[in-house]
Amino acid sequence: MKKIYFDHAATTHLDSKVLEKMLPYLKTKYGNASSLHNYGQESKDAIEKARKELANILKCSSEEIIFTSCGSESDSLAIIGYALANKSKGNHIITSKFEHPAVLEACKFLETQGFEISYISITKQGLVDIEKLKKSITKKTILVSIMHANNEIGTIQPIEEIYKICKDKSNEYKTKIVFHTDAVQTFGKIEINSSMADMISISAHKFYGPKGIGLLYKKSGINIKPIIHGHQEKNLRGGTYNTASIVGMAEAAKIAQKEKDVINKKLKNLTEKLTNEVLKIENTWINGIGKGAGENKLPGLVNFGFLLIEGESILMHLDNKGIMCSTGSACSSDSLQASHVLLALGLKPEEAHGSLRISLGKENTEEDIDYFLSVLPEIVEKLRNMSPFKNKAQLKSFKGNSTCR
Amino acid sequence: MKKIYFDHAATTHLDSKVLEKMLPYLKTKYGNASSLHNYGQESKDAIEKARKELANILKCSSEEIIFTSCGSESDSLAIIGYALANKSKGNHIITSKFEHPAVLEACKFLETQGFEISYISITKQGLVDIEKLKKSITKKTILVSIMHANNEIGTIQPIEEIYKICKDKSNEYKTKIVFHTDAVQTFGKIEINSSMADMISISAHKFYGPKGIGLLYKKSGINIKPIIHGHQEKNLRGGTYNTASIVGMAEAAKIAQKEKDVINKKLKNLTEKLTNEVLKIENTWINGIGKGAGENKLPGLVNFGFLLIEGESILMHLDNKGIMCSTGSACSSDSLQASHVLLALGLKPEEAHGSLRISLGKENTEEDIDYFLSVLPEIVEKLRNMSPFKNKAQLKSFKGNSTCR
Repeated sequence: MKKIYFDHAATTHLDSKVLEKMLPYLKTKYGNASSLHNYGQESKDAIEKARKELANILKCSSEEIIFTSCGSESDSLAIIGYALANKSKGNHIITSKFEHPAVLEACKFLETQGFEISYISITKQGLVDIEKLKKSITKKTILVSIMHANNEIGTIQPIEEIYKICKDKSNEYKTKIVFHTDAVQTFGKIEINSSMADMISISAHKFYGPKGIGLLYKKSGINIKPIIHGHQEKNLRGGTYNTASIVGMAEAAKIAQKEKDVINKKLKNLTEKLTNEVLKIENTWINGIGKGAGENKLPGLVNFGFLLIEGESILMHLDNKGIMCSTGSACSSDSLQASHVLLALGLKPEEAHGSLRISLGKENTEEDIDYFLSVLPEIVEKLRNMSPFKNKAQLKSFKGNSTCR
Repeated sequence: MKKIYFDHAATTHLDSKVLEKMLPYLKTKYGNASSLHNYGQESKDAIEKARKELANILKCSSEEIIFTSCGSESDSLAIIGYALANKSKGNHIITSKFEHPAVLEACKFLETQGFEISYISITKQGLVDIEKLKKSITKKTILVSIMHANNEIGTIQPIEEIYKICKDKSNEYKTKIVFHTDAVQTFGKIEINSSMADMISISAHKFYGPKGIGLLYKKSGINIKPIIHGHQEKNLRGGTYNTASIVGMAEAAKIAQKEKDVINKKLKNLTEKLTNEVLKIENTWINGIGKGAGENKLPGLVNFGFLLIEGESILMHLDNKGIMCSTGSACSSDSLQASHVLLALGLKPEEAHGSLRISLGKENTEEDIDYFLSVLPEIVEKLRNMSPFKNKAQLKSFKGNSTCR
């Protein structure tokens, strides 16, 4: 059976050109980059070259990059590391209700350490409520963390506006409000660079690089404490350098940078077709902004809502047909709770349970979309007929959750 | 020029059989193990199989293994995670003066969070002073962290005795003193299992597995807080699973388990020859216990001291001859400070600077040792003749630093 992968927001395949660049470091060039000898320096050189290449893409200096093992580590390092190092300046942190669990859980941890966290609400369109964010800033605010694009619904947040608010309020209050963004879903897809935040979290496996490697961009002069202790990365991140994966991340970033415009154009077209057709199914909507091809939407990511059926059931039926997608983020798919992102959008739990996230990638074709569209309506109809919640009156009266149809 | 690698305590090459097991997960089996679909479950199955295999070797249950990105992360997670989760029970932690920086720096961080740390001294032989350790335990002690084998001098600590002390004192004081050991240098080489500690840190790249992957064994019932937040590993370690590397770590562990007795025998013989010959050079000694082949010494690791010359200079001259070793640990070789391990042994800074660590691995041969022995005496003589510290009277009066010749 043909396999169609529509879950690129969860992870992507490793580009064969990236693996090719990694293999020498998995075979013969295995030195510890902290060793002074030949093999060690060979590794160190490769890492510093990769660091420079990534810095070029992020428009920052090499010294501003800290290699980590994943986006979640970058988030914890940025948020906990900054909070603990700057507690004397204030104990207030602002984030949003629909951040990635790595950010939300780090904030919850900080609540146990004497910090106060404001969780800003989300509009029905899936954008952080800027006015509320602005009003929540106090003289005690030291950090704002808002994701660049949401991983479940793909809405792109106005981070440049938020960064400017942080700077303006810092001037007004004569304080320092640092802005962090989790750009795990956007790096390699849309522009994100050092002019847009003070700290940026990135993960390689979201842009056809290897799993188990990420980075934190941290603007020069910003003081953080490590969370993994040791002597590497100027004492900010202990652990033997993962040379092969660092080299792989840089190669994947370079390829993404080169290919992204062409891929985005293709993904927008595919998403438009996909969206138009799926919305022809009755009592179906998009969670978050519009048709998935707008300015504030990540190309290729669209989150559908289907009334009265479980997203997991659709997912399983699609999986049986060789099509792989998700109901929300992969990180939370082990749990049976309704998505915190969809609840933050204002959906009722029963509406949130009927979600299906399609996230397209560079290898997807129009034929993939056609195949998906050929099997989906039948699955939805079958599940609705089986649904214990089935209620034709309810179906008929439903007007859609939001303005997003 | 022939390359001879004598720096296996810093890192090892990736076994080709391990890479072979990893490649499918770097190519086609790329699903996110948290995804519910086919590719996701394929990854999850591979991870759970690996977890079971590692649990078998550690004689524990699968539920007691937390995958991390490296030994340093495992150390920080164990020490900081346990301390922050159990602060209400006491704020005293015991470690030793010659732990890995990952442990020492994690403890220093905890000092800034209201914890008191006792750093137990080391005997001239390179063993933790057990009597001092015992005396330092108080009713406020919640955690003891002592490494299994020291990474710079290879001495094996009596961790079973220390674990028993922790249990006995817990009974005496009606408290709970948890014992953690950093077994990064020993797993895959000598026996280490769940009967020997409450928490054990392990890193794959020290036993011919990939870099960027490790684990923490945590005995069931022991409560810790995460340091990398998110939903994976029962909320104790966020981050997308690094399937390929987890599979690689399990394969490397299985191979090490099978091969270790044969390899150890070979390494003991090679180390004995190496040691006997090197000690024929005047004013040369071993840092830590005996001839590198004893019961309390890691097979294949020996740390030599050379009077009046810099270890770095010997290292560079050896490197020019194609022989790669280190002066101490790779983690600290970027710094010019004398090794904290050698200072803890009681060496003067000028003696500590003259150290050279040889750590043999499974591919090393008697020919490698012969070649090393053919070039070393000349290098030492040349450097001593060039040494600004040169002082024949000093050389003649030197009796060796310790009892360790």
